[in-house]
Amino acid sequence: MIRRLTVATDAHTTFVDITRQVEEVVREADIDEAVVTCLVLHTTAGLTINENADPDVLTDLANRLERVAPWQVPGDRHREGNSAAHLKASLVGPSLALPVEKGRLLLGTWQGVYLCEFDGPRTRTVVVRVTP
Amino acid sequence: MIRRLTVATDAHTTFVDITRQVEEVVREADIDEAVVTCLVLHTTAGLTINENADPDVLTDLANRLERVAPWQVPGDRHREGNSAAHLKASLVGPSLALPVEKGRLLLGTWQGVYLCEFDGPRTRTVVVRVTP
Amino acid sequence: MIRRLTVATDAHTTFVDITRQVEEVVREADIDEAVVTCLVLHTTAGLTINENADPDVLTDLANRLERVAPWQVPGDRHREGNSAAHLKASLVGPSLALPVEKGRLLLGTWQGVYLCEFDGPRTRTVVVRVTP
Repeated sequence: MIRRLTVATDAHTTFVDITRQVEEVVREADIDEAVVTCLVLHTTAGLTINENADPDVLTDLANRLERVAPWQVPGDRHREGNSAAHLKASLVGPSLALPVEKGRLLLGTWQGVYLCEFDGPRTRTVVVRVTP
Repeated sequence: MIRRLTVATDAHTTFVDITRQVEEVVREADIDEAVVTCLVLHTTAGLTINENADPDVLTDLANRLERVAPWQVPGDRHREGNSAAHLKASLVGPSLALPVEKGRLLLGTWQGVYLCEFDGPRTRTVVVRVTP
Repeated sequence: MIRRLTVATDAHTTFVDITRQVEEVVREADIDEAVVTCLVLHTTAGLTINENADPDVLTDLANRLERVAPWQVPGDRHREGNSAAHLKASLVGPSLALPVEKGRLLLGTWQGVYLCEFDGPRTRTVVVRVTP
């Protein structure tokens, strides 16, 4: 089963919790055990898992990623000027593989699934495939 | 088939080779061809593949990751003070997808599967799912 | 179904578009819906998805990764001297999970699948497994 999630981001750099949207796909699949593959269909956004409790973690992640990939770096050639977003996308990665057990996403207590927006605001598409 | 691996780490930052534990799950599954999905159930640890021969590679990885994500950075807001570990977890990533051929994990000669501990010592759980 | 791709790289650091090679495996599998798992069998190379339109993006990625992981860093212990390549490999990651829909790789318009060479030129192997 394949579904597409639509995720609207409201800032240039932001992390959007899509755990519930992924869980809805799992519920719809109605399958006891499986793997869920998620892929973001863009090159200036990524997917990651990180803490779902203290939002300060996400703020720190954004700030620290900005240190790793500053928006402007001498020598950048890409005319759109968003090479930092492309780098962050490749560092965080575009895809996740998540196990399903007893019909539910198997995550740790503090884990949430996040779409990482690195050049927003935009409307992003995430493909979710459930493999039995 | 889903199994949980328990991995005790003995340092703040360390890489633990879990290749044999993953291979045991593959052996138990007793399946000719498959994909193994691994997910670490924590937000300050990750999973990666890297060199299994010279342990100096892992030392260099730890030191270089510390340069990329210093333990303290001005402006960090997360009160636990371990935002560096959260960043490293997202950079390295929480999940791996590994092919199985002829009943065995298909890895390169120098490849080992590592749990990356970024805020230990702790006891970590890795979920392993074998998909036919 | 498992196939091995052979990818010859022609520079020390370079990104090689392997999208067509992966699509050929998908075509051969002749399956409506699936997930494709790709794994590079090396520890100084990685797999990523990034922009397939402006080659300057890839140049910027290479240059910016060199800032994140400079070739020489004081304190490196690995005698081969290529710890930077090992770090880049773990940052970008060794594996990808990609959905297949209507018999074709489901990618965004601007997405290409790249083998990332971080210590070439070499001949690299990428394993591709199609899971129904």
